[in-house]
Amino acid sequence: MVRRRVRRSSILHRLPALAVCVACLAARADPPPAPAPGLAAAVAPYAGVARRLIEAARQEPSAWTRLAELTDTFGHRLSGSESLEAALRWAAGEMKKDGLDNVRLEPVTVPRWVRGRESAALVAPVRHELAMLGLGNSVGTPPEGIEAELVIVRDFDELQRLGPAGVKGRIVLFDVPFTTYGETVVYRSTGASRAARLGAIAMLLRSVGPIGLRTPHTGALRYADDAPKIPAASIAVEDAQRLRRLRERGLTLRVRLRMQARFEADALSANLVGEIVGREAPHEIVLVGGHLDSWDVGTGAMDDGGGCVMTWQALRLVRRLGLRPRRTLRVVLFTNEENGLRGALAYRDRHAAELSDHVAALESDSGAFPPLGFGFSGVDAARTVIRDAARLLEPIGATRIGESGGGADVSPLAAAASVPTLSLDVDGARYFIYHHTQADTIERLSAEDLASGSAAVAVMAYVLADLPQRLPRRSAP
Amino acid sequence: MVRRRVRRSSILHRLPALAVCVACLAARADPPPAPAPGLAAAVAPYAGVARRLIEAARQEPSAWTRLAELTDTFGHRLSGSESLEAALRWAAGEMKKDGLDNVRLEPVTVPRWVRGRESAALVAPVRHELAMLGLGNSVGTPPEGIEAELVIVRDFDELQRLGPAGVKGRIVLFDVPFTTYGETVVYRSTGASRAARLGAIAMLLRSVGPIGLRTPHTGALRYADDAPKIPAASIAVEDAQRLRRLRERGLTLRVRLRMQARFEADALSANLVGEIVGREAPHEIVLVGGHLDSWDVGTGAMDDGGGCVMTWQALRLVRRLGLRPRRTLRVVLFTNEENGLRGALAYRDRHAAELSDHVAALESDSGAFPPLGFGFSGVDAARTVIRDAARLLEPIGATRIGESGGGADVSPLAAAASVPTLSLDVDGARYFIYHHTQADTIERLSAEDLASGSAAVAVMAYVLADLPQRLPRRSAP
Repeated sequence: MVRRRVRRSSILHRLPALAVCVACLAARADPPPAPAPGLAAAVAPYAGVARRLIEAARQEPSAWTRLAELTDTFGHRLSGSESLEAALRWAAGEMKKDGLDNVRLEPVTVPRWVRGRESAALVAPVRHELAMLGLGNSVGTPPEGIEAELVIVRDFDELQRLGPAGVKGRIVLFDVPFTTYGETVVYRSTGASRAARLGAIAMLLRSVGPIGLRTPHTGALRYADDAPKIPAASIAVEDAQRLRRLRERGLTLRVRLRMQARFEADALSANLVGEIVGREAPHEIVLVGGHLDSWDVGTGAMDDGGGCVMTWQALRLVRRLGLRPRRTLRVVLFTNEENGLRGALAYRDRHAAELSDHVAALESDSGAFPPLGFGFSGVDAARTVIRDAARLLEPIGATRIGESGGGADVSPLAAAASVPTLSLDVDGARYFIYHHTQADTIERLSAEDLASGSAAVAVMAYVLADLPQRLPRRSAP
Repeated sequence: MVRRRVRRSSILHRLPALAVCVACLAARADPPPAPAPGLAAAVAPYAGVARRLIEAARQEPSAWTRLAELTDTFGHRLSGSESLEAALRWAAGEMKKDGLDNVRLEPVTVPRWVRGRESAALVAPVRHELAMLGLGNSVGTPPEGIEAELVIVRDFDELQRLGPAGVKGRIVLFDVPFTTYGETVVYRSTGASRAARLGAIAMLLRSVGPIGLRTPHTGALRYADDAPKIPAASIAVEDAQRLRRLRERGLTLRVRLRMQARFEADALSANLVGEIVGREAPHEIVLVGGHLDSWDVGTGAMDDGGGCVMTWQALRLVRRLGLRPRRTLRVVLFTNEENGLRGALAYRDRHAAELSDHVAALESDSGAFPPLGFGFSGVDAARTVIRDAARLLEPIGATRIGESGGGADVSPLAAAASVPTLSLDVDGARYFIYHHTQADTIERLSAEDLASGSAAVAVMAYVLADLPQRLPRRSAP
């Protein structure tokens, strides 16, 4: 807290207009006696509320404490698991204790993919266990495993050049150096089917992420309809590099993969919804949220326990200050983002009739790191409002507005009803070190950052819910 | 290489005398036409040789390549394992190919501790697997495991305060924050017996190292004779912190530990020895070496494949330049440093008659990171020589002489015959991140650092083996 305050304070020194504004708000008048200088007229009346929400967020460690309790107690929360359902029930109880309105679990049927036991090993010319994680949605192997020669490629082009003659009956390793997630995740999501089309019998993937401490990364694959389903697993960067070096010494490598991965019968899960009902237009909704499900490694603290807790905390802060905006603030903790998106689709369908009254939808699923601002997808007139509102977050440095925003869980709302969507944008430097690994635990996140992120969401959501005019959008409601 | 050269070159600019000296040696005259300015008279004649050894080390990546081949091919190398013996045979063959003299495997009987399957889990009030590694030399549990209430202490004082009433029949977790290895490793080596004396039935240990990516650290324990032998395992820092947080919320925790750990019959291993026989006093020996065995996780690249390869490479560099010092240079790759030290003791006993002619013994077992100089244990007159010789390493910045030096494998020589001992001292900032973990792989080490370390050992060892007077020591030979 001390460290960040110092930085913010130096920003204040460079912005005398805002410094004056902050000083004049120390008395916590709401609305302030006069429009704050330097702010657009529409959002200026919210300067006092913003300041109070930021202070309230800073004064208590409850977001971190709550995230610790969630992740310590329930651990990882894969769709279909007991731990996810227990976490949902707990969170619903806590939301009620927080005094949120209309807290309810909205049922969602989710897939139940089960990892089971798994292992991968180099078996010839030498024998070594590989640090691995099966990919989500993968099929398993026969109980005795799959053993075959290993073919290593750097990219899809090299795979295609090998063709069926070089791939058939073999296990393919995509040894693709990590650049960006966008560029490399395509090997995780489509690599198995692309290798299978050429006759590969299993697929290994260099983990999609920077080198860790021999840390494999899981994540979902998608089988194409026109290719055999072959088992697929990620291995640690170090293991991929080792296999490549051995191969480059002219050795023929044989690998054995064993996976019990399988789908079991769909399970009943839920989206958790809580609200602060609007005082004037309760049918108009500003949605904020994250996803409570996680991969079955680590404790899903960063992805996306932190997003859940920060958006939930945003409503708690509004409530704590005794505020009730014009429109309804709704927090949704979605289920099944990681391997199915059924929570998001169920929300869209269940709330189809009211989507035209979803004024905005804000998702936090980039990790609870220092907030920088928001991504926004919507019409220009709305972007202006968002940009103006973000100016209220200068005390925590979260004023940047990115060219697009949203996320997996709110994108169906944009597609179905042109709901303007935002993402909480954060400093993502460390995100892909932990993403989908056993190291996604609360140790990666700080109370300061969770407080700042909660404040950023609270201020933006409150303003959007309270502005006299609703946020402009593409198609009229 | 570029990066480090830049740094070295900036050192040269600040040291005009040495810059002149290096420039005058570009012609590679050996010995140089006149004593080099700025160097003590005794070592000045070696300035040319030093320069050539450093250049030779830089010009080829063979140390890194060799370490990669060792660790990729044989993997980890615990005493009693097939992989250790295969690695010893391979290294002996390579040493012969290098043209070293008297290459031989000197038999050593070593303990064979086998980890077997192992797991630890919190089982109540919630159930979560813990990231764990059994401690070396630990006994196992019954097949069904040991399950009991968990008691968490910060240090031995807290354990003693609890006494038998608080400890008996329970599992003790030493949740000791990492400060230095020296301060915290005592919990790993003696914690099990200290807990057992109070009636604990198993011991867990927060890993001895900084937080990683949920990375447990193994390492040896020592059972005291007067305490029951209870099973003991290390857990990741994050898991220890999670258990503590749960406990601090007032929960009673139950943990289940299952370990198949056991000792099997002793196995036959060996120390690997290779030499460059001295041209004038072949019976006088300058020993350099590391240990080829490792823990059974990672690939033992840092601990201590790198030390083996650098000290071995030192002799190879001397050989490559066609040099033969006055005394014998001997490289020893010791076996069983990690869990028994039987290699070091066997060497001491087998070579008892010639220990008085061991002029110095240099061990590299601190990781193949940028070399800073040497630790030295010996009489002051010898320290002066060592300090003078290290001046020859100014081009690679390895001139610092620490107050004590040696290591586990050469310390028996010092104890038995006052052999002066040195350690290669390196930048150790990252060492304990990887130490005894699955992440101890060649990715942690660079070709530049291995080359610099090899050069540092080569220069120091060559000078000590070639100086007209042998290094002074406490007791006369």
